[in-house]
Amino acid sequence: MPALTLHPDRLFPADPATRDLARRLHASVRSLPIVSPHGHADPQWFADNAPFPDPAALLITPDHYVFRMLYSQGIALESLGIARIDGSDVERDPRRIWRLFADHYALFRGTPTRMWFDHALHEVFGIRERLDCESAERIYEACAQALKEPAFLPRALFERFNIEVIATTESPLDPLVQHRRIRESGWGGRVITAYRPDPVVDPEFDGFARNVTQFGELTGEDTTRWRGYLAAHRNRRAYFKSMGATSTDHGHPTARTCDLRESECHRLLERALAGTATREEAEQFRGQMLTEMAGMSIDDGLVMQIHPGSHRNHNPRVFRDFGRDKGADIPMPTDYVSALKPLLDRYGNERKLSIILFTLDETVYSRELAPLAGHYPVLRLGPPWWFHDSPEGMLRFREHATETAGFYNTVGFNDDTRAFLSIPARHDVARRIDCRFLATLAVEHRIDEDEAFDLAGNLAYHFAKAAYKL
Amino acid sequence: MPALTLHPDRLFPADPATRDLARRLHASVRSLPIVSPHGHADPQWFADNAPFPDPAALLITPDHYVFRMLYSQGIALESLGIARIDGSDVERDPRRIWRLFADHYALFRGTPTRMWFDHALHEVFGIRERLDCESAERIYEACAQALKEPAFLPRALFERFNIEVIATTESPLDPLVQHRRIRESGWGGRVITAYRPDPVVDPEFDGFARNVTQFGELTGEDTTRWRGYLAAHRNRRAYFKSMGATSTDHGHPTARTCDLRESECHRLLERALAGTATREEAEQFRGQMLTEMAGMSIDDGLVMQIHPGSHRNHNPRVFRDFGRDKGADIPMPTDYVSALKPLLDRYGNERKLSIILFTLDETVYSRELAPLAGHYPVLRLGPPWWFHDSPEGMLRFREHATETAGFYNTVGFNDDTRAFLSIPARHDVARRIDCRFLATLAVEHRIDEDEAFDLAGNLAYHFAKAAYKL
Amino acid sequence: MPALTLHPDRLFPADPATRDLARRLHASVRSLPIVSPHGHADPQWFADNAPFPDPAALLITPDHYVFRMLYSQGIALESLGIARIDGSDVERDPRRIWRLFADHYALFRGTPTRMWFDHALHEVFGIRERLDCESAERIYEACAQALKEPAFLPRALFERFNIEVIATTESPLDPLVQHRRIRESGWGGRVITAYRPDPVVDPEFDGFARNVTQFGELTGEDTTRWRGYLAAHRNRRAYFKSMGATSTDHGHPTARTCDLRESECHRLLERALAGTATREEAEQFRGQMLTEMAGMSIDDGLVMQIHPGSHRNHNPRVFRDFGRDKGADIPMPTDYVSALKPLLDRYGNERKLSIILFTLDETVYSRELAPLAGHYPVLRLGPPWWFHDSPEGMLRFREHATETAGFYNTVGFNDDTRAFLSIPARHDVARRIDCRFLATLAVEHRIDEDEAFDLAGNLAYHFAKAAYKL
Repeated sequence: MPALTLHPDRLFPADPATRDLARRLHASVRSLPIVSPHGHADPQWFADNAPFPDPAALLITPDHYVFRMLYSQGIALESLGIARIDGSDVERDPRRIWRLFADHYALFRGTPTRMWFDHALHEVFGIRERLDCESAERIYEACAQALKEPAFLPRALFERFNIEVIATTESPLDPLVQHRRIRESGWGGRVITAYRPDPVVDPEFDGFARNVTQFGELTGEDTTRWRGYLAAHRNRRAYFKSMGATSTDHGHPTARTCDLRESECHRLLERALAGTATREEAEQFRGQMLTEMAGMSIDDGLVMQIHPGSHRNHNPRVFRDFGRDKGADIPMPTDYVSALKPLLDRYGNERKLSIILFTLDETVYSRELAPLAGHYPVLRLGPPWWFHDSPEGMLRFREHATETAGFYNTVGFNDDTRAFLSIPARHDVARRIDCRFLATLAVEHRIDEDEAFDLAGNLAYHFAKAAYKL
Repeated sequence: MPALTLHPDRLFPADPATRDLARRLHASVRSLPIVSPHGHADPQWFADNAPFPDPAALLITPDHYVFRMLYSQGIALESLGIARIDGSDVERDPRRIWRLFADHYALFRGTPTRMWFDHALHEVFGIRERLDCESAERIYEACAQALKEPAFLPRALFERFNIEVIATTESPLDPLVQHRRIRESGWGGRVITAYRPDPVVDPEFDGFARNVTQFGELTGEDTTRWRGYLAAHRNRRAYFKSMGATSTDHGHPTARTCDLRESECHRLLERALAGTATREEAEQFRGQMLTEMAGMSIDDGLVMQIHPGSHRNHNPRVFRDFGRDKGADIPMPTDYVSALKPLLDRYGNERKLSIILFTLDETVYSRELAPLAGHYPVLRLGPPWWFHDSPEGMLRFREHATETAGFYNTVGFNDDTRAFLSIPARHDVARRIDCRFLATLAVEHRIDEDEAFDLAGNLAYHFAKAAYKL
Repeated sequence: MPALTLHPDRLFPADPATRDLARRLHASVRSLPIVSPHGHADPQWFADNAPFPDPAALLITPDHYVFRMLYSQGIALESLGIARIDGSDVERDPRRIWRLFADHYALFRGTPTRMWFDHALHEVFGIRERLDCESAERIYEACAQALKEPAFLPRALFERFNIEVIATTESPLDPLVQHRRIRESGWGGRVITAYRPDPVVDPEFDGFARNVTQFGELTGEDTTRWRGYLAAHRNRRAYFKSMGATSTDHGHPTARTCDLRESECHRLLERALAGTATREEAEQFRGQMLTEMAGMSIDDGLVMQIHPGSHRNHNPRVFRDFGRDKGADIPMPTDYVSALKPLLDRYGNERKLSIILFTLDETVYSRELAPLAGHYPVLRLGPPWWFHDSPEGMLRFREHATETAGFYNTVGFNDDTRAFLSIPARHDVARRIDCRFLATLAVEHRIDEDEAFDLAGNLAYHFAKAAYKL
């Protein structure tokens, strides 16, 4: 029976001198609170504070990192309990789902999912044997039992994880009922929202016209006209801000921005609402909205996040049968230098605007993002995102971006996750990798040791607070 | 006189703890047989089992890695004995060719060619002094003498190299006479073919129409019509399969795939045969054929390999004077996310299809290939190819692909070589680098040590056998 | 008060065995003279040999690496003393500029600017305390005092830096008065020019038509006609050569080359001069001129350098207010495989031509540049350029290019700087990183130790001399 251990030196380099300094740097930041400025936690967890149903529903079924890998090796999504859109039968027994996952746990060797999962089992559930087909049932039972205890309720875990603040992301159409319930509950945990307008700014989003109509009803604005449509955004942004939001988030296919005349904007809106916008017009509309959002951010102070470059729902059969976010999103080459120019030409030199850029295309770190962020006052670099939220991904980010952008044009770590139990694991990985990178710089005499300690605290905690105004 | 040594720790990292584990991992796989599922060995070697003529003809003249580097430094290909198409005079004296190469051996410092060459000299010929202008003649003599001995005949070397199976690649027009001779010889070595249809699926291939006519004659199908043309493929695939083939191989300029209506396919075939296809139509025809080949693979079980992204014959003067494969092929940026979509839309979720993707564009490892292979059941990642079949190239592949695709969506090592004596050297490099990568993961506590041992055997041997159905 | 130290092991890896060899390699090259074959030193420094005015004017105001980072964090360029085009007021007090810089010195942690700046303070000025807000004034005073001493005059520093030869870059319209003054002064320092024809080969260059007119006047050629225009180039190239030039330099937006008929060239020139050339025609004209320059290089032996891939003046407000070269140039993806083909088709196999390629797009190192340089006799790879002239950038270059291009298709180091005092620092970084890379290869038994020593001298000194014919 192989043991499950979390080695205290995990993710630190083997060289003894570097490892020693990495350890000391990490010791100085490991107890800092978690600031989670961007993620996909469900606010209902904290509003209801109900027990999580079972280990599979908590750890496997909602995690697209997990089931995409299993699917890639020929395991049917149905057998993992992923709901089909047609409502037809899928596996319901969490024990069988868990067992299937455990049988294939070797697939995750060398992936961050493995590290996050082990971290959750070890730290949250106190498991001390490695997951495999032999241990699967014992571990399931232990986790299932634990989830019934008060210490495993969402708010208790939130506190145990030492989360200072967590931001969720919601559509402008979301009434933010759960956030209101959390506030009114008297519980001290800080759960805030972020303004993610994709459903009403992307003409290709499912139900766009219907969404914009609802957007108008919600705000009392005439969203069929350009000015009314913009006013509706201002209205909802203000509401989101009143519910704690300090940021907006924009998940576009590209980083394209536009700066069109008002008459042209109005025409694009009309065509988008009529469903007659071409792909190019849809792209222009989204691009114009990034520039508009930047302008509104100058007024209301919300920090802007741009997450471009994913070919969503690349697999039409999976999309048809299971819907969005089922592990079939694939990164694409992403241009920033030309794409951002219209927005930057207009707002790039503002002092009151902050735009955090993310990418799924690592080639742009040294070629585009670091040079842009190392010049434009409005730009900052978000941490490695999605597939790159991993030890190697984080190291590449620091190695490629730091020499041109420095550390101070970066914004600390985002966990960006739907998997609640992975939050401490992800922050732990990020802190370890950053400490490792800093230790390497110091041991190679590229920075001084006192600077490494100062930076470790910034990267683990202070930068995120400052960049997101938290 | 500098010594030639193969240090037992070569390619292992300097850190003592990591090196120690790398050593132990390597010791566990170093004696595993070689599985060579993709390469360009000449089956005639094993059919004739005749002595190799001389050291230059064996080691220098056929190796485009070798003469491209010499050419880049101003050495005429003629002086290396590379045959001119016009039949005009080139160097014929193998001693002079060898000497010229030895004089410039320093050019290969830091390249894999240097490691492969040293390995062949040391392990195959027992040479113990480093090649340079001073030692050139002695080494030539020793090698030339050895080549006359029975122990240096192709079959003897095959056995000494511990090759369990080797696949060559042949055109559908190849009668596979050599393979038949090998089988009929009673020799126990397993030499199989692979179906490489470029000459009859690429309208821009030299002599395409003539090839397709011959293809029809060979199969008794009417290859001037789309259905007959497809039937001819099925016919030859079956024949290749009967000669041991377990795979097909497709060397296209891009990864473009198409899924066109039959009438359109027929029209493209007609234009291709008439020599009136535009570049775009030629590209569509190749793209359609990838999808057709995938469909046939579902039926006959042949594993499909796609090798895109080389700008072949970039240098028109070299092509005119010396022909194909003379070191003038240059990689290009290669898109997979859009290019493969038509094929994947049709067959991406099949359980009975396996497509192994290669690339010459390392930027796609983390951005496209690992995310695709980490989702689609039909996709696997081939090892680093061609210019990237090198220590740094292999490390980059593992570092970029593993966190998203895992190890189990990769297929072990291919040597892909025309240089017979480099086969053990190339597998040795691959095993060392994989053990090094695994040792690093284990020493940094990212996988457990027993997992590293399990993976080492998979990467060195078992994955290739399974992926290629060998 | 934190000390400023330059650790003797800086930039060497932590592993003791590797570090030890890196140290020994470095000791063998550290005293070699500096060969600076490409840069932007101002020849007037050496012609006048007047004292540098003050520390800010020497170290801060002219260095776009410095002020782009400060600007990215919201510091106005005016407050750094950067002159506005409208002549309106900017900070004039060098002490205040220095202080502002020192207050934000932490921004440069982990950047090469920090290493270069510390090196200059430590080695040139003998400073032994770290720059920060507390030490700023003391350090300013010490530097300001030093600059008044004879030992800090430009020629004295040139000699103290052990510069064997330095090349500046000048426009064909430059009369090279300063170079002539240097020559006529009897001073022994070797300061040569390089032919940088952007102002007269780029139709989009400010004042192109005016420049070409002046070009005609200067040379007595009819530059309104294609043949006269080419003759003017030949004329000025000869003059530059007479003033020591051994190279030309071409800073184009892309690597596009053309090989057009003469009538088409003439038509493009006419349209360019008339200001009616489209963007595409301007691009063709520049591309044609690269091919023409290559042809002239075959005749006159000047080595050709191509520096493509920068989106110049990306920030229109900064360009309007402050002009060119103000830190707002951003790299773009750059194609070489197709772009260089017309030139290579014509001249790629010449023995008397040498073209040194640079890039701002690191993705091309392994995909395009190393394969091209590893085949074409005319091509060599320049060192990592601009944003990539950094420890990580240099390591990536060696790791990505060496296995395919070898060391011998590279040309040593260029400092490429306007910041005179950073020259020894930059060469120091390059030598250390190259020694580190070589040490790693040797410790991993990928090259022999004697080869590492041989290569260290080549990379530090001999390759640059040979490649630039110095």
